[in-house]
Amino acid sequence: MNAPLSASLPAAAHAPADYIRPAYLNIGESIVRELGRMMSQPGMLALAGGYPGPDLFDRDGLMEASQAALRDSTVASLQYGPSEGQAGLREAICGWMAEAGTTVHPDDVLITSGSAQGFDLLVRTLMQPGDCALLERPTYTGPIRVLQVAGARTLTVGVDAEGLKVDELEAMLKDPALPRPKLLYVVPTFANPSGATMTRARRIRLLELAVEHRFVIAEDDPYGRLRFSGEPEPHLLALTDEVPGSKAWVAHLGSFSKVIAPGLRVAWLIAEPRLRRACMMARQLDDISNPGFTQTTVQKYLQAGRLTARMPVIVEAYRARATALREALDEHLAGELDMHFPQGGMFAWGRLRRPASARDLLPLAIEEKVTFVPGDIYFADRPDPAALRLSFSTPTPDQIREAVARLGRAVRRL
Amino acid sequence: MNAPLSASLPAAAHAPADYIRPAYLNIGESIVRELGRMMSQPGMLALAGGYPGPDLFDRDGLMEASQAALRDSTVASLQYGPSEGQAGLREAICGWMAEAGTTVHPDDVLITSGSAQGFDLLVRTLMQPGDCALLERPTYTGPIRVLQVAGARTLTVGVDAEGLKVDELEAMLKDPALPRPKLLYVVPTFANPSGATMTRARRIRLLELAVEHRFVIAEDDPYGRLRFSGEPEPHLLALTDEVPGSKAWVAHLGSFSKVIAPGLRVAWLIAEPRLRRACMMARQLDDISNPGFTQTTVQKYLQAGRLTARMPVIVEAYRARATALREALDEHLAGELDMHFPQGGMFAWGRLRRPASARDLLPLAIEEKVTFVPGDIYFADRPDPAALRLSFSTPTPDQIREAVARLGRAVRRL
Repeated sequence: MNAPLSASLPAAAHAPADYIRPAYLNIGESIVRELGRMMSQPGMLALAGGYPGPDLFDRDGLMEASQAALRDSTVASLQYGPSEGQAGLREAICGWMAEAGTTVHPDDVLITSGSAQGFDLLVRTLMQPGDCALLERPTYTGPIRVLQVAGARTLTVGVDAEGLKVDELEAMLKDPALPRPKLLYVVPTFANPSGATMTRARRIRLLELAVEHRFVIAEDDPYGRLRFSGEPEPHLLALTDEVPGSKAWVAHLGSFSKVIAPGLRVAWLIAEPRLRRACMMARQLDDISNPGFTQTTVQKYLQAGRLTARMPVIVEAYRARATALREALDEHLAGELDMHFPQGGMFAWGRLRRPASARDLLPLAIEEKVTFVPGDIYFADRPDPAALRLSFSTPTPDQIREAVARLGRAVRRL
Repeated sequence: MNAPLSASLPAAAHAPADYIRPAYLNIGESIVRELGRMMSQPGMLALAGGYPGPDLFDRDGLMEASQAALRDSTVASLQYGPSEGQAGLREAICGWMAEAGTTVHPDDVLITSGSAQGFDLLVRTLMQPGDCALLERPTYTGPIRVLQVAGARTLTVGVDAEGLKVDELEAMLKDPALPRPKLLYVVPTFANPSGATMTRARRIRLLELAVEHRFVIAEDDPYGRLRFSGEPEPHLLALTDEVPGSKAWVAHLGSFSKVIAPGLRVAWLIAEPRLRRACMMARQLDDISNPGFTQTTVQKYLQAGRLTARMPVIVEAYRARATALREALDEHLAGELDMHFPQGGMFAWGRLRRPASARDLLPLAIEEKVTFVPGDIYFADRPDPAALRLSFSTPTPDQIREAVARLGRAVRRL
């Protein structure tokens, strides 16, 4: 094997750095993805990544569905297809949304390669450099980085146990010293990283504010169906029926990554026609469409009723993992952490009580063979150095108990 | 079923048009994709799309490969994976490139979702609004539209039977009245739409010009392995060994879309480390990675040796189709068209001899139940209204003969 170009090219032979746009040249690797790579180290236990439990993948069901797809829908699986996504899959997604109480028409659905792509398409089609976007504080890291590369200004709105603080948002929207936002990114149910879920009253108020102050809400809902306690809250998209004028201001992002498998990259965006079409055209100039094969596979899988039948098993597994995490923290870290436990999803969120930073804890934890994510990366501004996110989705309950024991040893070494 | 939003939303309830960036709001649907949709009309025969023949898809081989992928590489198929693509697939691609005489290291390969995404990533990471790019005249429509949306200026360089006219390019590069280009997009072998292949001498000269005038060459090579006559020309990427300093200026785009199936969306970009990393980061903020499942499927398919074994069958099929087209044109359209027939690939390119426009011919052809692509769309400037592209990849030889008979009737009605 010859050497990679990095070894064989003298520094002077690289394309000049000023050929590459600075935004892409200077961007750092996501720490979450770095930590994700550590998951494959022998003996390492992960409370880090937002990865679904690999033991929960329905391998046999997907083997059947993919064979049926290639056998019965050969050309749809293998030929070029429509950029909006296959009609049959868009219909099946409407069925899946209806199970959660949200009525959608297939014409309003754009299939995307993960809901991350859906958000990127919204930013590409909406945001000019200098435009303002709103983020939760804390929020998922992906949107922070996408908005940064797009040259957007960001403002942040606080979060408590009932989700986005709409009163704080309202005060910001009315403050003439602050720029007018075009876009707000929010995970209303089992947010990443906070685990918080917005109450119905806050959802309604958020929609009213979007209409009044004219901003697009990107409602990201990857975790909503993973509820293991409490009562479901409706999607913002569903509540637009109750708030006049709000339907045009909600772009809903749904995904099968957390309930079927991330490795299929099948997700969807629902938005008013003009915005949805702009996103579709942006895609037609980029990756053209999702693979036909993964679309037909997911369609067959849904049509066979496998996902709906399997959901109770998946939810039960995450309930058991969340319980194991809670009990193990009580046992090994009593008095050390202030934690918020969610009613579903994949994440517990909290902070160290002792005056220390989660960044300083991380190398000690890695020495003890356990990973977590320092919370400061989830803040677009005003980071809390004591914050940390513990994910309970990937390990089994036994692994979680062992991981927390190791984390306890690391904390006591701080 | 409820109504789609386009029916239920009053015009005033749409997000205001000025929220959407004008570049995405005003863009038209690709005529090639519109014509592609016509392929499904009953009785329609297509000389239009650059679609591989659906009868050439190796359904059984892909069923085996996808089952092996899910069975033996369950987690790699279904979990989140690296943005640069799976290591095993990148290695297998190096093997495929080596068969064509080009030596590459897996570290230099970035898996992309079609080579269209590879080009879009290059434009996103390299081009600022107002920057200048060079295109062939005629060229593939995708890059014209991507550069337009990016706000780039484009200049065009003529093409003859020996591909890009490097003398014309050199004169442009030396013309102080013209802007300095950062990027040139070229399909050196069996170009779309011209079918032309650059000679070795022109390839070497192009590399020398890139070094001297400091521009990145995006070498798109989707068709290179589909050669049914003549001798292979080396990739520009391979010839960089012979032109000092040129290695850093070539970004190579390869793809399995035309030889395995477009519906898998597996392609790759090879570029110097800094540019490749910038493209990888751009992807990490967008769709994160190709699906794991399609990557493991293609890897198993390649490792089983199925593609290499199958290539002679595919090449023979396209040879038969090209021959059928040539003979049918002699029979039904003698004296009506000046055509260039390629030594491989999917496209014959030519122009009407009678003083008429191919746009005017199209509706008559559709009435006769045959489609082709008017050539004017392939020009970023100075379009030739008499030009047309005839694709021979999708229909069988019998269908091609019937399609050309129909086209003959349409031309005589002009």
